[in-house]
Amino acid sequence: MTTIDDLPIRDDLRGRRPYGAPQLDVPVRLNTNENSYPVPEPVVEAISKALAAELRDLNRYPDRDAVALRTDLADYLGHGLDTDNLWAANGSNEIQQQLLQAFAGPGRTALGFTPAYSMHPLLALGTGTRWVDGRRAADFGLSPADTVDQVRVHRPDVVFLCSPNNPTGTALNPAVVDAVLAAAPGMVVVDEAYAEFARPGTPTALSLLPGHPRLVVTRTMSKAFGFAGGRLGYLAADPAVVDAVQLVRLPYHLSALTQAAARAALAHRSALLGTVEVIKEQRDRIVAELRRRRFTVADSDANFVLFEVGGDQCVVWRALLEHGVLVRDVGLPGWLRVTAGTPQETDAFLAAIDQSGKVEQ
Amino acid sequence: MTTIDDLPIRDDLRGRRPYGAPQLDVPVRLNTNENSYPVPEPVVEAISKALAAELRDLNRYPDRDAVALRTDLADYLGHGLDTDNLWAANGSNEIQQQLLQAFAGPGRTALGFTPAYSMHPLLALGTGTRWVDGRRAADFGLSPADTVDQVRVHRPDVVFLCSPNNPTGTALNPAVVDAVLAAAPGMVVVDEAYAEFARPGTPTALSLLPGHPRLVVTRTMSKAFGFAGGRLGYLAADPAVVDAVQLVRLPYHLSALTQAAARAALAHRSALLGTVEVIKEQRDRIVAELRRRRFTVADSDANFVLFEVGGDQCVVWRALLEHGVLVRDVGLPGWLRVTAGTPQETDAFLAAIDQSGKVEQ
Repeated sequence: MTTIDDLPIRDDLRGRRPYGAPQLDVPVRLNTNENSYPVPEPVVEAISKALAAELRDLNRYPDRDAVALRTDLADYLGHGLDTDNLWAANGSNEIQQQLLQAFAGPGRTALGFTPAYSMHPLLALGTGTRWVDGRRAADFGLSPADTVDQVRVHRPDVVFLCSPNNPTGTALNPAVVDAVLAAAPGMVVVDEAYAEFARPGTPTALSLLPGHPRLVVTRTMSKAFGFAGGRLGYLAADPAVVDAVQLVRLPYHLSALTQAAARAALAHRSALLGTVEVIKEQRDRIVAELRRRRFTVADSDANFVLFEVGGDQCVVWRALLEHGVLVRDVGLPGWLRVTAGTPQETDAFLAAIDQSGKVEQ
Repeated sequence: MTTIDDLPIRDDLRGRRPYGAPQLDVPVRLNTNENSYPVPEPVVEAISKALAAELRDLNRYPDRDAVALRTDLADYLGHGLDTDNLWAANGSNEIQQQLLQAFAGPGRTALGFTPAYSMHPLLALGTGTRWVDGRRAADFGLSPADTVDQVRVHRPDVVFLCSPNNPTGTALNPAVVDAVLAAAPGMVVVDEAYAEFARPGTPTALSLLPGHPRLVVTRTMSKAFGFAGGRLGYLAADPAVVDAVQLVRLPYHLSALTQAAARAALAHRSALLGTVEVIKEQRDRIVAELRRRRFTVADSDANFVLFEVGGDQCVVWRALLEHGVLVRDVGLPGWLRVTAGTPQETDAFLAAIDQSGKVEQ
């Protein structure tokens, strides 16, 4: 039998495994930061109707530029943004891959600050971009001075910042974005996948877009909108950035169905985003309950919580799974990440923690 | 105002334009090889029902491995293929991009034979792969000896062959695939986007898959299935190739909606593929009618016809457009490509040709 090792794959891919959390069928899935709430029935009906209207003409290619969808996304974001500030793709992974293809790639460098979204270095690998793993403080913090020092040393073509950061959950000090924008020689990508869950008063980098044509803010409908299965990521930036991305996008990358479903979801955003407040309550409850149990917990502006298990995280991960609760081992020794979902899921997670959780320190 | 030239885009992208034919609103669109027949009503209903069943759970990520869809695709292709021989993505462009990311990329070379599918060199550019433009004979033919000579000279990591070839429309002599498989040091990709339209007796490279783990056959549902708006491309290959592609695919690249819609379309393939015979009749009619008018026409196994206009193709392209018929200028001096659609579209095309077409030689 032929194996992957017998094929002429790229040397830098040899020995690697595909990215992705285990997709296990367990009662309480809190491992991929999905929104635990199903799509409400009136929104299901609206999306269904929007999709049905596309089906007869599915023999035709979709709008290659997804103009109507980008207009709706601009309207959702506000901040004075317009259609030509927006670009959309099949998930923010594809958005970020396109950014690397346009602004990084062979002979160029991208810098990110570990631990952060673990796809960023893999997207660099997949696009032939040299990846530099930046440092964070022991509490996962990023100070303007330390961040800028690293930007000055590595002179990256693309800098990735995450706010709120995944897997730590904490929003970035806005002074870091300002400082990096001033110091970076290339593009600055702020990944705001979890922005809708931020605690009150947390700023978005969208407000920095005017006057910063090298700033790109990426977003997704997978989390707050509960639209993970629909696959819709997008960016907001200067129109010139959108022009640049169009040089590398695959033609007709976004299906007519994706465009129609995302537009219907955006039209019903008040119903879909209605889950955000209850998820934030559960997030804050998880933080408080874990701290009450004397776990070390990172501040969270997202729909998940990173906590230190006080021992081998693999052991605790398995123990939680035995109690029917799937959380995420993000590869940080001693830490686990749990998604905030419904109150019942929080109950199940805390019960499982109490039965199997903290290793005594 | 910032322009793309002010941004730090890659030097090899500077001055380029986004790929894509003009999307113009004209009565007769015969420029992108779409299937001119809308999706039949019973199939619309079946797809609609399949999509509706997904919507409530759209808060969850889709099956990352698209197992059910790949099983259905294997069943459609036959040739003893199974789920683990198949891989699917958002159009065959994404399939071919993934193949280049896994097997080519920086420091590696891909070889194709111009004129062929014009996205192949652009996918090479986007993945940092060095592109070598191979030669064809003056009649666009490829002989085994000449093809193998070029493979031996360039020793490409990936060879692209198209059968039927786009834009010429002619299927490849199967001896060419055999010879390239024997001579090529790397992967051999046979792009069979138009395979369902081939004239009787035209072989598919699928039959060569057993014993050839470096052979990949790519297909699409955009053409014969009339599913261009649904965006579904796929490959068939040794399971090890599928493993390799999974190292570079974006996680959850294929939405739950795409998977469900494609499965419903495959379940109703007899209705969808019912248009293939009438399109082939129109294709053969266009070839015969153009030859009767003394145009030089390439043999076609596809749903389009390449013909020599006998002068400046830009002039004829514009003249046809003025008669409401949009065809494709594929950048071959003196030639135009027209899609075969409905009998009425053929009538309109031939009438427009007669009023504006052949420049006297």
